[in-house]
Amino acid sequence: MSVIERLRDELGDIVDTSPELLEAVRADRSGHRSTGRPLAVVHARTVDDVQATMRIASQTATAVVVRGAGTGLAGAANAGPGEIVLSMTGMDRVLDVRPDDLIAVVEPGILNAQLNTLLADHGVWWAPDPASRDISTVGGNIATGAGGLLCAKYGVVRDAVLGVDLVLADGRMLRLGRRTVKGVSGLDLTSLVIGSEGQLGVVVAATLKLRRLTEGTVCTVTASFRTVRDAAAGAAAVAASGVQPAIMELMDAASLAAVHTLLSLATPADGTAQLTIQTDGPASRDEAARIVEVLQAAGGAVAMTDDPAQGEELLRIRRSMHAAMASLGTTLIEDVAVPRSAMPAMFDEIARIERSYGISIPTVAHAGDGNLHPNFIFDGAEVPTHIWAAADELFRAAIGLGGTLTGEHGIGVLKSRWLADELGDDQWELQRQIVRVFDPQGILNPGKVFARA
Amino acid sequence: MSVIERLRDELGDIVDTSPELLEAVRADRSGHRSTGRPLAVVHARTVDDVQATMRIASQTATAVVVRGAGTGLAGAANAGPGEIVLSMTGMDRVLDVRPDDLIAVVEPGILNAQLNTLLADHGVWWAPDPASRDISTVGGNIATGAGGLLCAKYGVVRDAVLGVDLVLADGRMLRLGRRTVKGVSGLDLTSLVIGSEGQLGVVVAATLKLRRLTEGTVCTVTASFRTVRDAAAGAAAVAASGVQPAIMELMDAASLAAVHTLLSLATPADGTAQLTIQTDGPASRDEAARIVEVLQAAGGAVAMTDDPAQGEELLRIRRSMHAAMASLGTTLIEDVAVPRSAMPAMFDEIARIERSYGISIPTVAHAGDGNLHPNFIFDGAEVPTHIWAAADELFRAAIGLGGTLTGEHGIGVLKSRWLADELGDDQWELQRQIVRVFDPQGILNPGKVFARA
Ligand SMILES: Cc1cc2nc3c(=O)[nH]c(=O)nc-3n(C[C@H](O)[C@H](O)[C@H](O)COP(=O)(O)OP(=O)(O)OC[C@H]3O[C@@H](n4cnc5c(N)ncnc54)[C@H](O)[C@@H]3O)c2cc1C
Ligand SMILES: Cc1cc2nc3c(=O)[nH]c(=O)nc-3n(C[C@H](O)[C@H](O)[C@H](O)COP(=O)(O)OP(=O)(O)OC[C@H]3O[C@@H](n4cnc5c(N)ncnc54)[C@H](O)[C@@H]3O)c2cc1C
Repeated sequence: MSVIERLRDELGDIVDTSPELLEAVRADRSGHRSTGRPLAVVHARTVDDVQATMRIASQTATAVVVRGAGTGLAGAANAGPGEIVLSMTGMDRVLDVRPDDLIAVVEPGILNAQLNTLLADHGVWWAPDPASRDISTVGGNIATGAGGLLCAKYGVVRDAVLGVDLVLADGRMLRLGRRTVKGVSGLDLTSLVIGSEGQLGVVVAATLKLRRLTEGTVCTVTASFRTVRDAAAGAAAVAASGVQPAIMELMDAASLAAVHTLLSLATPADGTAQLTIQTDGPASRDEAARIVEVLQAAGGAVAMTDDPAQGEELLRIRRSMHAAMASLGTTLIEDVAVPRSAMPAMFDEIARIERSYGISIPTVAHAGDGNLHPNFIFDGAEVPTHIWAAADELFRAAIGLGGTLTGEHGIGVLKSRWLADELGDDQWELQRQIVRVFDPQGILNPGKVFARA
Repeated sequence: MSVIERLRDELGDIVDTSPELLEAVRADRSGHRSTGRPLAVVHARTVDDVQATMRIASQTATAVVVRGAGTGLAGAANAGPGEIVLSMTGMDRVLDVRPDDLIAVVEPGILNAQLNTLLADHGVWWAPDPASRDISTVGGNIATGAGGLLCAKYGVVRDAVLGVDLVLADGRMLRLGRRTVKGVSGLDLTSLVIGSEGQLGVVVAATLKLRRLTEGTVCTVTASFRTVRDAAAGAAAVAASGVQPAIMELMDAASLAAVHTLLSLATPADGTAQLTIQTDGPASRDEAARIVEVLQAAGGAVAMTDDPAQGEELLRIRRSMHAAMASLGTTLIEDVAVPRSAMPAMFDEIARIERSYGISIPTVAHAGDGNLHPNFIFDGAEVPTHIWAAADELFRAAIGLGGTLTGEHGIGVLKSRWLADELGDDQWELQRQIVRVFDPQGILNPGKVFARA
């Protein structure tokens, strides 16, 4: 029996080989696609389905690509010839919510925003808020270690998961972590799974650490600066002032102009860069007022509103970045992070690379935590050589400033060739050996993360 | 050449074989000691010393026990015959402090309190505050994944470390993690090292995530209850109210009475249990007032002060628990954690075990995060069989309530026989294989954590 026959035999009509779907799962949102269509997509509904799929895959040494919503930006969910796609979006139940313990147990396929809508009824929320929260799954958020706009104040996924149930490559299930806020028995394998990009196993359930809904009015501050360096220095001054914004986003001139064009807003003055900052909680007004002072002292043209609708409108400019870039051409979205104080220097490096390659690199940043998204724009489906060369310089510049290749999007296929540069060869090899402990045959997401070019 | 000769040859007089020291390092503060004296103590001053020691150890297949201040409560730093002790207290420098980036890079041997005194000059602090902060090292805090009084609000060690430099069993050094607040390149090995109890390598430096010093007046609330169950329910009511105390400690009647005797304070009424709660930050007064209301409604006799000195005095009662227990006999301090809402049920279980074994189990709890320290008291150096049996029931009760064996003290030698019960055999085996990736010969802290009885 072929692999597909075995899958059909055991799992019936959740095994899907419709050509459109097989075509669609070749790609995520990174702008990259695999070399061809995979074998089949299994629409898992239960843990049993996942275990059965993995047993068949390991017995036949067939590669498996776990897939959430496919919104990833590193090509980690892209599936190619000979591979099975294990789709988790059908496993989307909330299994338990305990507002008093501030935990929820959920299946991986639920969308982030959908979960938070349900949690709001209980007066709680799960803090990780990638800009893709309406369209990405909690399982995908966990597997990528996603960040978001609010994470400077409220933390990333790593800070918000207490445990996961993991189905291994051979179909066995492990319960990692716990339901208590504290616990140090054995190694922290939950953290190891966070950000592991589908290499260690299939997350079939997660115990999430929740927060109570924040009280108080959200205030929004915007500040325009004449150069991006000034804006970055303004963000650094806010950070150094000790006030903790909930959100602090930076847009450089090229990004700001592109979004204004997309949304048909009045064009900002040439070179203008912008900070958009929100404060929340009981002290939000006072904090916003202090931020206004700091930004004025830093030379910004500052405005403030405590109208939530207006605030959301202002933030929409930042949230439209992805669409604005897509309207310009194919985009390679980068994701370097540097220590907060190195942000102005990182913008200098970006300007240098723009000059030296004669390209424009529109850049936005989660300025509250030093995470920059430089966007390389080009025509056609393949990343041109000179763009790779420029990206290469960008990565090395970030690492040189004490930074990292990827603040939140992951390595996937896009950055695997640089991973050893950041980790060092010894650590790279040791990490690969750890992956092999979970998956001795190497059937989970092969050719990603720990594949050298 | 013998191992000691090789060590002396390469490292000179930092190799110490004085009998008193060799005797002292047989034990930590768990009340347990190894079966005999180790070979030698190496007082590391530099990373090179650590690497040289590990190279000699791995070439000669000699076991190494890394030691911080030896204040551990699980026997993890106890060293026995044939073993080398690698003492880290001499490596106690602060290598870098960046208040603007909220990071510090430190050597592992610095004491927690000493570090925080230095950091205070920069307006920042490192949040983990084990009750042993004056006497335990940052390296030990990391290797145990220590918690503390403030961690309900400010997090545990896992939330406060961005990266570590790790010397492997064979002497190679890896730089794990990063200096940026966000980063997802490769597996999160930093988290794996946190709480690994000296099994994966030697932490020779750590990049710590700092916080700005908290503004506002610390307010202290105490509440007495007629039963420990009422006190636990009071704590649960505070948690459910949404106010976040900085500290919320619970003492049962036996603990409270023992400390009052030790400190020569007036004896509390029979059966009285107590909550001691602190709030901090700009809203501390309002929060304390709300907590007073909640606790009065829960039937507590409540008092409040905003005098920091008086607050510290009240907290001293809680901080004297360890000494009070030691005055009663030899102590086995347990460390179970349960979901917050299960605390009253856990106290019922403790009462049941007390009755069934005819013993008293004085218990304190970090009530803000469901972490209980039941104390078993006995005479002599060895834990009697019936105490182990009672402890066994306690662990199983905690796990049955969705809890864990150890909230913050670790597994060490004391709890290794229960670890597989919590993890399951498959996960236990997989974790052991991961340890072997770091340390193929198994020379780091053998016979601990992953040793079955
Ligand atoms: C417009 C837009 C904005 C974005 N903004 C952000 C942002 O602000 N921050 C951010 O971090 N990311 C952002 N992203 C990237 C992306 O949304 C995140 O990486 C997200 O976490 C991916 O979730 P997903 O469900 O789409 O996962 P997928 O793309 O389907 O998969 C991503 C990886 O996770 C693995 N995986 C998925 N589910 C599981 C599971 N159950 N078990 C094991 N492995 C699994 C896959 O194998 C793959 O390796 C954005 C993307 C878009 C398109
Ligand atoms: C009075 C008292 C109160 C306490 N209160 C608390 C509390 O509130 N919360 C809490 O969590 N703990 C508490 N403890 C326990 C203890 O203080 C902590 O576990 C502490 O983190 C141990 O630090 P140490 O330097 O003494 O480490 P040690 O006891 O010397 O070592 C502990 C473990 O860490 C390993 N280790 C030490 N340094 C390194 C290094 N550089 N690299 C690799 N491994 C290393 C050792 O091998 C061992 O496995 C308390 C102890 C006492 C005596």
